[in-house]
Amino acid sequence: MALVDELAALIGSGNVIAGDSSPARAYLGDETESRALSGSAAAIALPDDAEGVRQVTAWCYAHDVAIVPRGGGSGFSGGAVPSEGSVVIGVERLTQGLEFETGSWRVHVPAGTITAALREQARKRGFYYPPDPGSQAVSLIGGNIATNAGGPHTFKYGVTGSWVSGLEVVLAPGELVQIGGRVRKDVGGYDLRSLLIGSEGTLGIVTGAWMKLIPAPEAALPVVGFYPSTEAGQAAILNVLASGVAPAAVEFLDAETMEAALPTLGEAIPGLPPEVTGTATFVVIAEADGSSDQVARDREDLIAVMQAGAQAVHAPAKRAEVSALWLWRDVVSRAVTAREGGKVSEDIVVPVERIAETVRIVHELGARHRVPTCNWGHAGDGNIHANFMVNRNDEAGLARAAEAAHELFEFVTSIGGAVSGEHGIGIVKNHMLALQWPSRALDLHAQVKRVFDPKGLFNPGKKLAR
Amino acid sequence: MALVDELAALIGSGNVIAGDSSPARAYLGDETESRALSGSAAAIALPDDAEGVRQVTAWCYAHDVAIVPRGGGSGFSGGAVPSEGSVVIGVERLTQGLEFETGSWRVHVPAGTITAALREQARKRGFYYPPDPGSQAVSLIGGNIATNAGGPHTFKYGVTGSWVSGLEVVLAPGELVQIGGRVRKDVGGYDLRSLLIGSEGTLGIVTGAWMKLIPAPEAALPVVGFYPSTEAGQAAILNVLASGVAPAAVEFLDAETMEAALPTLGEAIPGLPPEVTGTATFVVIAEADGSSDQVARDREDLIAVMQAGAQAVHAPAKRAEVSALWLWRDVVSRAVTAREGGKVSEDIVVPVERIAETVRIVHELGARHRVPTCNWGHAGDGNIHANFMVNRNDEAGLARAAEAAHELFEFVTSIGGAVSGEHGIGIVKNHMLALQWPSRALDLHAQVKRVFDPKGLFNPGKKLAR
Repeated sequence: MALVDELAALIGSGNVIAGDSSPARAYLGDETESRALSGSAAAIALPDDAEGVRQVTAWCYAHDVAIVPRGGGSGFSGGAVPSEGSVVIGVERLTQGLEFETGSWRVHVPAGTITAALREQARKRGFYYPPDPGSQAVSLIGGNIATNAGGPHTFKYGVTGSWVSGLEVVLAPGELVQIGGRVRKDVGGYDLRSLLIGSEGTLGIVTGAWMKLIPAPEAALPVVGFYPSTEAGQAAILNVLASGVAPAAVEFLDAETMEAALPTLGEAIPGLPPEVTGTATFVVIAEADGSSDQVARDREDLIAVMQAGAQAVHAPAKRAEVSALWLWRDVVSRAVTAREGGKVSEDIVVPVERIAETVRIVHELGARHRVPTCNWGHAGDGNIHANFMVNRNDEAGLARAAEAAHELFEFVTSIGGAVSGEHGIGIVKNHMLALQWPSRALDLHAQVKRVFDPKGLFNPGKKLAR
Repeated sequence: MALVDELAALIGSGNVIAGDSSPARAYLGDETESRALSGSAAAIALPDDAEGVRQVTAWCYAHDVAIVPRGGGSGFSGGAVPSEGSVVIGVERLTQGLEFETGSWRVHVPAGTITAALREQARKRGFYYPPDPGSQAVSLIGGNIATNAGGPHTFKYGVTGSWVSGLEVVLAPGELVQIGGRVRKDVGGYDLRSLLIGSEGTLGIVTGAWMKLIPAPEAALPVVGFYPSTEAGQAAILNVLASGVAPAAVEFLDAETMEAALPTLGEAIPGLPPEVTGTATFVVIAEADGSSDQVARDREDLIAVMQAGAQAVHAPAKRAEVSALWLWRDVVSRAVTAREGGKVSEDIVVPVERIAETVRIVHELGARHRVPTCNWGHAGDGNIHANFMVNRNDEAGLARAAEAAHELFEFVTSIGGAVSGEHGIGIVKNHMLALQWPSRALDLHAQVKRVFDPKGLFNPGKKLAR
């Protein structure tokens, strides 16, 4: 029996797509298509439930077929790009069993839940699920857990993993296992939960999770500062950290990003003088959240410290304006892609006080390798999205961008930084961890992989440490 | 050359104590001496620096000698109790290199730093290091990381691991490795950092860490509610969670704990009518923190919700009164030990809404096995310190307590709870994880141990999953 028929016999023909059929195309790439990456697969399996995921996994493991787990397909590192002959296991139909237990500040979330939907459903009940990756409108919680996704508000609230108290995961050779659950603390065993979170589907497939919630803050207000130089922007970031306010988010965007995203900024910040948006070299957004009174005071403090060295400070207070600003912030990435018809989007982390230096180096590398660059990111966390803007059909340009990115990773790791803050390694950053970790840790990385996946069938070729 | 001389040649004779000498005695037990546990060792090594830890580890690994890492010796699970012929490696002299970088909200902490000293040093600089285990006056950060220690304020702020951004650790066969560092986010590799945190010295020895800080909250005020029944206390806990306030801590103590700790409570809560402290069955402490205004409002909200069903609500506002209350809370554990001259202190986690049920079962088990019981703990996290009070010389009593504890673990795991929230497994809870985890996860636990420690020399016999 053909592979597709075998899988159909397990989970139903309506849940299996032949890899060479036209509907399969939507499952062969992710956001790395902006850098011309996509793959091929023998079949796409879209089980309705965790048991279906388990069955397909068990079948693949028994038949030595590679398994490529897939969430919402919004990754930037090719983690969900399938390899020839593999079976993609998408969790998008795992949507049954979203159960709120708000009295105990928690929720059970099936892996196919859209991030923004979880946030909205929580908010309706007076609760807050903080992680807010830029792709939240399409990303799935399963993918968020597999990549340990971040976002602007993880500065105050921590990344996805900070909110997971229990994991439901299919492990090799095809077993559905629960680690943790409703409990908020647990030091009984080694922290296999954290080991699985961020493992990009190379150790197992997340089918669901118990997650923590907190009461929704009453209010949240951003303050936007426009600065004439990268150095002035860096100073503003450090001034915010020294202000005594513990902001929910501290973001930045450089001039090149502003230029790419400018057409949509007008709507986001109505009434802002074009001479400011047109000339600012560095923009900082800091947001205070909490009770209304507290936010009002923190906002005043932020305005005061952010005025130092600023060309302008904009502090929207109307709900619609605030929403528009964050919505604009979320689409910056797509606006930048649109500019050149593609981009090589890197995602590095440096100590927060070295953002300006790093941004300058990104631009220098871009100039030297003849690739336009722009940077934005989660300033408070030192997490920079360094973008090399290249049309995806420009092979030579892509090669130059890859060289520039490699030099960037060398610099970042030389100052104690990390090669990925939230996008993961996938295929585009394979071997880059070797710049960052000592040899002994790289050995352990490989051995841990073998322990979980002795046949090497879970997302093969991804997240290779060296 | 004798083992002690070999070690002295490596790290200096002033840093090595012969296992059979009288000064060694201070290193052969931990708080499990209250249940009559202590061990023996060939030698105690107290290196001055991480390189010394590395040298001793390498020597032991090469000579097949077991290594027992030791922090402040305040553990409750025997994790630091050495086995015959082993070398204890204490990190108490690793105190050089406490370096604050408050402008970037972080600090480098050598493993020998006392927890309370780190908290105090941070506070002097206007910053806050939240984890506050009851033993903070003597526990060391190295031990806190090895056990992933908690405390009252981890309800809002997370356990020790939440604050570690980089680990310096000696791994087999004797290599000093750094994983992470100053960066606040990192998803490049598998999360080996989290795997090491809470591994109780069975995977490596922590010599230092980069840790995160936050600006110190301006104020913190507790509200204490006294309730006539366990059920009324449970309702109060859930009322606090439903209040919209996000408290920094939610603690509880039962009547039996109050009785044991009563002699010191009068000083902690001056002016409190004895008819209340003498009759309350269940006490809840909730603390609000933040700006002064915010805390004042949250305190009013907490008082309002905690009055429902209460015999009395006490809300100290003077700094000295608040300090006295938390100091009293920290010494409850010792007060309870004093009552019977020993205790079997367990440390379980249940879903927060099942605290009352669990407390009732602890008392039932105590009655059935003829051991006095008392419970207190971190209510918000569902983390109960269930204590079976037995004199440490009463062998039959200790055996009955062990039976009662085992039945308690069976109950706890049957409702999705955890066998340890902050004390770890050590030797006293070996094999208890098998009640909680599926077989596949237990296999992985054993395999991960082999990957890190192929010779099985790191803290052998501790944290056994089954």
